[in-house]
Amino acid sequence: MTRISFVNGNFIDHDKAFVHIEDRGFQFADGAYEVILYSNNKLIDDKPHINRLFRSLGEINIKHQLSYEYIIKNIVDLFNKNNLSDGFVYMQVTRGATNRVPFCPKELDVTVTMTVSQTKTYTHEEFINGLSLVTMDDIRWHRCDIKTTGLLASTLCNQKAKDLGFDDALFVRNQVITEATYSNFFVIDNDNNLVTKPSDNNILEGITRNRIIAIAKENKFNVIEKNFDLSFALSAQEAFLTSSTLGIRPVSKINNFAIGRENSRNISLKLSSLYKEFCKN
Amino acid sequence: MTRISFVNGNFIDHDKAFVHIEDRGFQFADGAYEVILYSNNKLIDDKPHINRLFRSLGEINIKHQLSYEYIIKNIVDLFNKNNLSDGFVYMQVTRGATNRVPFCPKELDVTVTMTVSQTKTYTHEEFINGLSLVTMDDIRWHRCDIKTTGLLASTLCNQKAKDLGFDDALFVRNQVITEATYSNFFVIDNDNNLVTKPSDNNILEGITRNRIIAIAKENKFNVIEKNFDLSFALSAQEAFLTSSTLGIRPVSKINNFAIGRENSRNISLKLSSLYKEFCKN
Repeated sequence: MTRISFVNGNFIDHDKAFVHIEDRGFQFADGAYEVILYSNNKLIDDKPHINRLFRSLGEINIKHQLSYEYIIKNIVDLFNKNNLSDGFVYMQVTRGATNRVPFCPKELDVTVTMTVSQTKTYTHEEFINGLSLVTMDDIRWHRCDIKTTGLLASTLCNQKAKDLGFDDALFVRNQVITEATYSNFFVIDNDNNLVTKPSDNNILEGITRNRIIAIAKENKFNVIEKNFDLSFALSAQEAFLTSSTLGIRPVSKINNFAIGRENSRNISLKLSSLYKEFCKN
Repeated sequence: MTRISFVNGNFIDHDKAFVHIEDRGFQFADGAYEVILYSNNKLIDDKPHINRLFRSLGEINIKHQLSYEYIIKNIVDLFNKNNLSDGFVYMQVTRGATNRVPFCPKELDVTVTMTVSQTKTYTHEEFINGLSLVTMDDIRWHRCDIKTTGLLASTLCNQKAKDLGFDDALFVRNQVITEATYSNFFVIDNDNNLVTKPSDNNILEGITRNRIIAIAKENKFNVIEKNFDLSFALSAQEAFLTSSTLGIRPVSKINNFAIGRENSRNISLKLSSLYKEFCKN
């Protein structure tokens, strides 16, 4: 069947879904985006995702008239038109199209695009095997708290990691581990604390990150948000990444150092199954 | 008359010049660009501009089959089709369009877009009045030597400067003045040396910057490339910005401190007229 995408209020054959070459998103990365999981005909954590989109747009001074209800209705319609009951929606809002100027023109109509795609599943064995990470200098800009489309550093470092034989890069800025290219990083320390970096301008405050923290606290885990370095991470008993597309994915090694005792995945598995329960309900 | 733009080998009515919503340029700022001055039917410093474009594409591993001759022929054709003998061309090359993936897909066909516009002229009085700058933290990524379309930080800071009543922002990283949002920064110190930051990963090595340095040296100016801070800049006798769109534009104040002795523009004027001579020949 034909893949359908969304452009400025219209549902369009994906192959014919275009934006103008002077769209600010194309010429300046002047826009924000979100990725939301759709599970069994239900959007997961849609409210915090849309709130974060509105925050991102506010931080870069993009004015819009988008409402939560308008966005959700169109996302659900888009999944329906693509006959998908599970998947992801990528939604991007840019400042709009206009003659090129070096500042931020006001009063433009924003450009809104959405695509949906099927969920990428992974087997239990892949989950247990875990992902391998290689540390890299965090060369991104200093407002990583805004989910903008300026993703070149992330995509380059993700590719560089793959070229080096790893699954992803783990960013380090001023000795502090920040996050992976598109996901947040957690470790379980040897006292069974769940440890992750506090949210600041150097990481994106993940919606899945926050959900895992909430679920962990509800289940009597001790959660510590603090900055930590590579040696702390290497001493952990478990480590994992979180994102809307990954859920929870264990990390098996960093820079060729194996993580954890006897490749334990106990706590990662426990939290992953609690998160899957949350997504079902 | 109809404005014509260039998209992937085709000359198209500007209003109908589109790229796909899954173009990597739109979703990841995964591309590079150049701006070249066209003066009296002649491209200015086209070779170093195209060489820099090829360098930028190389640094972000975008493979392409574009030749210098192909690009120049199409730029000149585009100016002709728009009946312009003077102006600017903006040329952008992205990795191409494909289903969204977080890494850098290989073997895509690059997307090439170009627009041309008229030269923005300024009066002698505007030149003499100079531009006002306000210093801001350089929050950009750490590969400013690559001319990518990830311009959100520049466009936000340019706008913020305007909102504060200044013409542009002057970036400062670790106490060092790097550059303005879209131009390089020079000062004339009190020994008549022309001083500018050495090119490294924190600035774009401007083609106009390099041309001004070459012209200055040919005309017996002493040129010093060194890092300097705000207090050094404020002690200068003159200061100016350079870019393909600005040429040379004097700076009259930084953060409400007037620059220079009795608003001298002597050396800026001399270099500007030498640069205009160069563009004519």
